[in-house]
This record gives sequence, C-alpha cells and structure tokens, in this order.
Amino acid sequence: MRALVWDGSRARLVEDAPRPAIAPGTAIVRVRRAGICSTDLQILAGYMGFRGILGHEFVGEVEEGPPELVGKRVVGEINFACGRCPTCLERRPRHCPTRSVLGILGADGAFAELVRLPAANLHVVPDAIDDRRAVFVEPLAAAFEGAEQTRDLKGGRVAVIGSGKLGLLIAQVLASRGDRVSLIGHRESSLERVRARIGDRLARLSVATSLRDQVTRGFDMVVDASGSHEGLAAAMELVRPEGTILLKSTVAGSHTLDLAPLVIDEVRLIGSRCGPFAPAIEALAADQVTVDALIDDELPLSNAVGALRKAAAPGKLKVLLDAER
Amino acid sequence: MRALVWDGSRARLVEDAPRPAIAPGTAIVRVRRAGICSTDLQILAGYMGFRGILGHEFVGEVEEGPPELVGKRVVGEINFACGRCPTCLERRPRHCPTRSVLGILGADGAFAELVRLPAANLHVVPDAIDDRRAVFVEPLAAAFEGAEQTRDLKGGRVAVIGSGKLGLLIAQVLASRGDRVSLIGHRESSLERVRARIGDRLARLSVATSLRDQVTRGFDMVVDASGSHEGLAAAMELVRPEGTILLKSTVAGSHTLDLAPLVIDEVRLIGSRCGPFAPAIEALAADQVTVDALIDDELPLSNAVGALRKAAAPGKLKVLLDAER
Repeated sequence: MRALVWDGSRARLVEDAPRPAIAPGTAIVRVRRAGICSTDLQILAGYMGFRGILGHEFVGEVEEGPPELVGKRVVGEINFACGRCPTCLERRPRHCPTRSVLGILGADGAFAELVRLPAANLHVVPDAIDDRRAVFVEPLAAAFEGAEQTRDLKGGRVAVIGSGKLGLLIAQVLASRGDRVSLIGHRESSLERVRARIGDRLARLSVATSLRDQVTRGFDMVVDASGSHEGLAAAMELVRPEGTILLKSTVAGSHTLDLAPLVIDEVRLIGSRCGPFAPAIEALAADQVTVDALIDDELPLSNAVGALRKAAAPGKLKVLLDAER
Repeated sequence: MRALVWDGSRARLVEDAPRPAIAPGTAIVRVRRAGICSTDLQILAGYMGFRGILGHEFVGEVEEGPPELVGKRVVGEINFACGRCPTCLERRPRHCPTRSVLGILGADGAFAELVRLPAANLHVVPDAIDDRRAVFVEPLAAAFEGAEQTRDLKGGRVAVIGSGKLGLLIAQVLASRGDRVSLIGHRESSLERVRARIGDRLARLSVATSLRDQVTRGFDMVVDASGSHEGLAAAMELVRPEGTILLKSTVAGSHTLDLAPLVIDEVRLIGSRCGPFAPAIEALAADQVTVDALIDDELPLSNAVGALRKAAAPGKLKVLLDAER
C-alpha cells in the first residue's frame, strides 16, 4: 500500500509499504481523508524522535476487525493504552506510561491507505459530519480538553495567542461556552483570515494584532496556542493575578524563563494535550464549530510530500490528504 | 528608634531612625518579636530592589491608631492595597498593582522598635498564642494559601521538596487536612531535624533524603519549597500525569526549563505567595501546627546584623528578633 514514511531525515511516499496485520483487539481502517497537524511538522524537526508512517488525524472505513465495526465510518483516538497499569486503572489512559501514539510514538500513522488501531479507540462518525469535517475531530478534541480543564472559568475574559489551526478551534470552543474571547495574532493578514472565516460565528470574538493593541490586559485566562517560545512570556504579560494560562503548544527544547512573576501573581499554568472525542463529535454534528473554513488545500496521498511542504508555508491552515487518490 | 536598614549594599542597625508618623487609616505598632524569613535574605541578594527597614513577620502592641485597637496585641498582613482599583474591587487586594509590601516593596518593615501599617491589615492575636509563636502567623498563612489553592486535592499523595521553614509549615498544613505527605530534603541532617521536631505531629509524614529514594513517584501534588532553581525540575519528575505542582519558591532570576513535559503530562503548575491570616491564627490557637520546634535562635534587635548572619547559615531554621532588647 502507499504510505508517507519518515525515516528521521526524509519524508517520502512508499508505494509498497506492508499492509498492517490485524491483531486481537485491533481494527484495520481504510483511510479516506487525513489532516496534516503542526505536530507532524514538528516531528520532521526532531520532535519525539519518531520513525515510521506519519499522521494522526483521519477518517476512514473499518475493513477488518470486530463485526459490529466493519463497514462503519470511524475516527480514532490516538493514544494506545495498556489498560492494566495504575495510570490506566485510575482512568488516565491517555497518559499510560507505556502508551504508543498514532503516528507520533511507536505506532504507524494514518498517512496511508490503511491504518491499524485498537478497536476500543474508534468512534463511529454520524452522517451529519462529512469526511472533510470528520478529520477535525482529533484536533477539536484537543481544544475541548482545554475547556474541560478550565471549567471553573466559563464566561470569563480570555485571550487566545496564536491564529493557527489550534488557536481558531480553541477560540471557537471557548466562545461557544460563553467566554469573551480575544484572538491575538502577530500578522494582520492572518487576522483578516480569522475575521473572514470564523468572525461571523463568534459574536464575542475580538481580534488584536499584537500585544501593544491590548490596552486592557488582565485576562482571566490566556491560551498559548502560538507554537513558539515567545507565547508563554506574552501570556504571562496578559494574564491577571490569580489567572490561568493554558499551555497548548508543545515547543521542542528548553527555553529560559523567569518564573518569579508566576509565584508573585499566583498564576495557574495548565499543560493541555489530547482530549475527549465525544464532545468534539457532538459539536461538529450540531455545527457549533466551523472547521470547513480552516481547510486551505486538499491533495492526493500520492502527493503527500508536496502536501507537507504546503502545510509548512507561513499562515497556512489545514491541508488535507485524500487517501483514496 | 532602633531599626535594621538595608541600603542596597549593607544591612546596618540605625539607632536614630525616625519614629513612623501616624496617618489616617494607619496604626503604629510597638514590635515585640519579629522573624527572619528567607525573603529577607533574598532581598540582601537583590530581590525586589528594596531599600529601607527590613522585616515582615512580627507581633506587637498597637501604640497609636483606632481606639478599639490601641493596647491590643496584633499581627499584620503585609500587602497594603489601595482598596479602589479593579483588582481590589474584585477582592484580590493582595494583588493590588499599586500595593506596597511591608519590608519588601515601598514600605518600611518590622525589624524596628515601631512599625506602621494600615489598621485594616491588623489581626488581634488570641491569648492562646504567645509572642514567639505569633511571629509564625504570616509564614503559616502562606502555607495555608497553598492548601486553599489545592482544595480539590485534599487527601492525596503529596511530596514537599525542601526541609526549610516553609517546607515544614506546608507539610504540617497539608498533613493536617489528611494528605499523605512525603518530605524531601537533600541533607540527612536536616531530615533528622524534621523527624525530631515535627515527626510526632504527623502520623502520615514520611521522609526521603533524595529523589533516588523515591521509588514510587507519581505524586498527586508536589510542593516546591526548595528555594532553588532545581526544585521545579525535580517536581516535574515526581508528579503524576494530570498532577499539580505548587510553586512556593520565588527564586530571583531566569532559569532554563523544558516545558514540553508539562504539556504532554497535562500538569498544573500553581504559583503561590501570601495567604489568609484567619486560618493560620486558628491553627496556632488550637495547637494544630508545631512552630516552637522551628525556632533555632532568638537575638536582641540590637544584634540584628548578627541575627541575619545566623539566619543565613545552612540548615538554620527560624531566627527571631526580640525588639524589646
């Protein structure tokens, strides 16, 4: 089968990758659409030291596996847990210390014609969500995770730093629960795009182009979805005393920070990664979150290398792969 | 009057410091006892750029001020808020952006015969708390602040890193609410001291001398009261996924950290500074927390410079000043 393989120095399309073998408790899914995430691009820069088939955002049809799933259209949770360790038994399977993660850590990913996952990780997609939107279930779940971790701040004044894919999803999720959201990007062009694409969905969304424009600081919560080292320092400037910073960017490598303001201002910093699929599926089915407007390109799997290149261009939002072509 | 003055390069005892003048809303307190805090020692190393009379832990008798307070034995909250700004009106006076802080920021402190505070900051001390123990109300309040910020973790497995004054207070406060507390210090001698002094108070206290001894990691909460740059990195090793790190150390200056594990493990990092006096006074009056055992020395104010030197010695716990001598 065709698959996009990262060998640590080069991403290339392999025409004759072996078909994944079914194993007890797993399912084989024929991929229809997949999405390129910033994490995929970070892997190309060394993140996680991953080797293998890339890709963790997908929708497809179950080809082999439990009879009740075969033929169903599904999306899949990306953390494969052991189910038996103390962390799993404490209901934190996404943090299982021996987990593998689809296309990120020890498990081949979804930029391929076929992908294997534990059957328990699959969620059937309702008809109301077409394939292109279904690809967003995984990143949207990560946005919902941030909302879940900050339930106590519902309705507050929030700044989202970063006008990339994740920033636009989080801004919408928080606005939909009643937060007054300011989106902060550092390019005027990217913010025009935000206004054009999701501005109409968000009555309370306001947009700033830089920290200098934020005449009133003191946000109850600041989300760092900047994907850069500067995001956290900016968040510390914008948040109010006893406020919350939600850290959604995994930026590889160390950076230098003065944490004294965090102690003096009694700020709460929350790391946030993957999230629950159910609320993301519900929100997409009910059309509560706009994702179509975030799709910039769709390329065939046969040109996956070109798609990665496109996805890395500045200001580019979601690039999809059509795995049937 | 006598006072210990820090001029930015030298701490010296001044014999003829001017008596503080009463102003509307303030009170003049004749200091009986004061305590030397690690923050005082950090000020001598440049923290906060403070100049003036040092000291923020004290007990004394009101000499001038509101008639209902004159003659009363009091302790004082150290943040002097404006009471009118949005932060104050949102009931966060300890974070007032124009605040001064007793002996730390823009307000002369309590290592003197007399000290002036806003009358609203004073709390009358019950007879059950003698002068030496009353000095601990302020640092104990800071320990209670950490407990208040982590109410949701009551009863959990907690590691406290740091066997200094603050570490021993926090360990006791958390143990008294039912947490299973491990205290982690890096000197065997300091831990023998812990066992000897507060071991009998804490049925669930366990003591480790280094991270290597912590065969079981995965603490629900880790308190960094180490006062060093290494504390946070150690806390990140010890905390479980989705666990909490309470940051009680204000370590001056920047340091280098890889925050990716915080995001991947979805850890919550909470900065924690000053706290509410009422629960600290209650706990001392009810003898729920041992503080006498933390007093290593008591020197007269006339030898305040020598007392600072003693307080800076490795492994030294609380050094008190007797302001009447």
